[in-house]
Amino acid sequence: MKRTSRDIRIANRFEVLRRIIGAPMVSRQQIASETGLSLATAANLIGELMELGLLVEVGFQDSGGGRPRGVVSVNPSGGVLVGVDVAETYVHVELFDAALGVLASVEEELHPRENRPEQVVAHIASGVQAAFEAAGVGPDRVLGAGVSVPGQVDREGGVSVYAPNWDWHDVPLRSLLAESLDLPLYLDNPLRACVVAELWFGAGRGRDDVVVVNLGTGVGAGLAFGGTLYRGATNSAGEWGHTTLVVDGRLCHCGSRGCVETYVGAPGIMQTLRDLAPNSPLLHPEDQTATIEALAHGVAAGDPVAAKVVTETARYLGVAVADLINLVNPEVIVLSSWVAARLGESLLAEVGAVVAQHALSRPLAATEITLCQIAGNPVSLGAATFALKRFLAGIGTPAGGLIRRV
Amino acid sequence: MKRTSRDIRIANRFEVLRRIIGAPMVSRQQIASETGLSLATAANLIGELMELGLLVEVGFQDSGGGRPRGVVSVNPSGGVLVGVDVAETYVHVELFDAALGVLASVEEELHPRENRPEQVVAHIASGVQAAFEAAGVGPDRVLGAGVSVPGQVDREGGVSVYAPNWDWHDVPLRSLLAESLDLPLYLDNPLRACVVAELWFGAGRGRDDVVVVNLGTGVGAGLAFGGTLYRGATNSAGEWGHTTLVVDGRLCHCGSRGCVETYVGAPGIMQTLRDLAPNSPLLHPEDQTATIEALAHGVAAGDPVAAKVVTETARYLGVAVADLINLVNPEVIVLSSWVAARLGESLLAEVGAVVAQHALSRPLAATEITLCQIAGNPVSLGAATFALKRFLAGIGTPAGGLIRRV
Repeated sequence: MKRTSRDIRIANRFEVLRRIIGAPMVSRQQIASETGLSLATAANLIGELMELGLLVEVGFQDSGGGRPRGVVSVNPSGGVLVGVDVAETYVHVELFDAALGVLASVEEELHPRENRPEQVVAHIASGVQAAFEAAGVGPDRVLGAGVSVPGQVDREGGVSVYAPNWDWHDVPLRSLLAESLDLPLYLDNPLRACVVAELWFGAGRGRDDVVVVNLGTGVGAGLAFGGTLYRGATNSAGEWGHTTLVVDGRLCHCGSRGCVETYVGAPGIMQTLRDLAPNSPLLHPEDQTATIEALAHGVAAGDPVAAKVVTETARYLGVAVADLINLVNPEVIVLSSWVAARLGESLLAEVGAVVAQHALSRPLAATEITLCQIAGNPVSLGAATFALKRFLAGIGTPAGGLIRRV
Repeated sequence: MKRTSRDIRIANRFEVLRRIIGAPMVSRQQIASETGLSLATAANLIGELMELGLLVEVGFQDSGGGRPRGVVSVNPSGGVLVGVDVAETYVHVELFDAALGVLASVEEELHPRENRPEQVVAHIASGVQAAFEAAGVGPDRVLGAGVSVPGQVDREGGVSVYAPNWDWHDVPLRSLLAESLDLPLYLDNPLRACVVAELWFGAGRGRDDVVVVNLGTGVGAGLAFGGTLYRGATNSAGEWGHTTLVVDGRLCHCGSRGCVETYVGAPGIMQTLRDLAPNSPLLHPEDQTATIEALAHGVAAGDPVAAKVVTETARYLGVAVADLINLVNPEVIVLSSWVAARLGESLLAEVGAVVAQHALSRPLAATEITLCQIAGNPVSLGAATFALKRFLAGIGTPAGGLIRRV
């Protein structure tokens, strides 16, 4: 609640860089006017980021009679960021330049049940190594690495507190990773990563109240209020997948019943398929990815079972999305993650009508529902953005940016 | 998203007054240190509030060697505030001094179906008049009147957009009220009023992430994030009563099915009673208040039907509260409004176990669930606080405080 002047300075530094990444070639005056900061403060923050090599002066613009104004952009070669998306079925590693442009991208599959912490850590380490080789860069230029893992995360301690689909409890992931990766490591979860990616680069740009619905093996809702990521009291906010859609409904691995996740997560969709057509060739009992792919192809090919599964899933998803609209009253709801990437178009076509039946008209009229439009992997992008944010927060501290460069 | 320096000044003015109302007899140095403002800014804001007559210098405190420090308090005679809680079954009017101490309190009953806009407006006007007479003050000393009405409100336009239990649509309440009340009028709803009351005077003090669950005829969840009331995109956030607890469940007057409100609002509790014991003497078919009272007495007297109704209601309430914990991860959930005042103790005794079954352990451990502890009516108090906040926001503008006093 109480923000120190240091907090405010970090937030402003972050906001200035975010604006410049979003709209390259801007003047100090434009940044001041867009952020509401004074020109002196904006110029000072820009100077600091230039000193760090993150921004460069790229030219001048006419000021309508006065002195021409210097125009700045992000310096892509100002440093490298690592973003890692660890999901139940894969490890996706991306390297980014300082403008969050992709330098290299590597994906390693996680086989079903290949989910012991040391197995997952080995995939992260080899993925990062492969990405360094692909991009021809070394760890010395890395400003930070953001790692997103499913479930609940203690980011200060770098601990995966609870990853329900893997039954992980209090896994000290940062320590385990530090044995093979000598990088500043920041842990968080895909809900947070996706929200940050949408706020910086997606449908959340310029919006205050944003919900990112992640549809994967697990499901959740990343939240941003007032243009800022919302974490809740213990960084656990957004466990929409474990809100109840049907009292006494399907059993959930969290121990409860009728959770949203048991209907709209990949295993839930498989269950719906099994209930409707137990012997369907669309069903790959041990392979979520293959089943969701098969459903997507089935819908495209006019398969009636696939269509029925989508309709049934859309019914549950629509009710649960309407709940978010009624409770949160957001400006936009983005459907993200791998199930949305594959089935999102078909789901979206049917979700709208269900939402309209269940949401109140005033908040409904204010909410856009859209698929994630970010090219590439939004979780890796968001994770790298976290690393950049942490780097910016460390500037001027003993362990922070200015010292690192000496 | 973009806050101007004027917005920041208003927020700081408000925060300074809030701190001083909460902890009277404080020095400028203490206020600066508690708010994170510079001493110059704090002193400047305090000077402005003193000039308006809202604060007074009440003495000096030792500063440990230096000059004694001036100590300020709110000046109760700095003005009068009106807070009106319009509910489905009553109109409750309170007058407050500038320190939000109650000067007078008047309640008029609304008979069932006595809910046409002009009937409700007449009750508000006569209630305010009666309160003025009881307190021996006149409208000339009123800084503002806050009026809370159920449902969705367009506060800029002063319009009750939708009051579902009365089937009100787009009722221009402020214009109707202005015909009989010559006061600066501010409209909002009980969810917002209760949150503000809890943040200033209740369980929300010093906390960032707060949910106030209103259990009345309608139900809803007022939200505060980062210590500030959260409104959502169209001031409709918090319609938790219209989130789905049971897909295809009880029909709700909103047109949807299985809404939380149909199980834990007063009519929903009556329905549960009717389902369990259609001929119960506890049931007063046309009178919610009497039925809830009878249930409360029944529980106290060991009536098994009353106990069963409470258990069944607690089961639904517990699941729906767990949903809030999982999605929002708040520090505290406060049960408020008239049903909570009457049945809250009994409900709370059983809700905890249900919540523990449905909430994830990490956010659960961080959440306190409590009954509203505010003496008097929190909605009236919150509505008066809105009026004070609007008064503070208007200072220095042509229609605002400084000019009014000339």
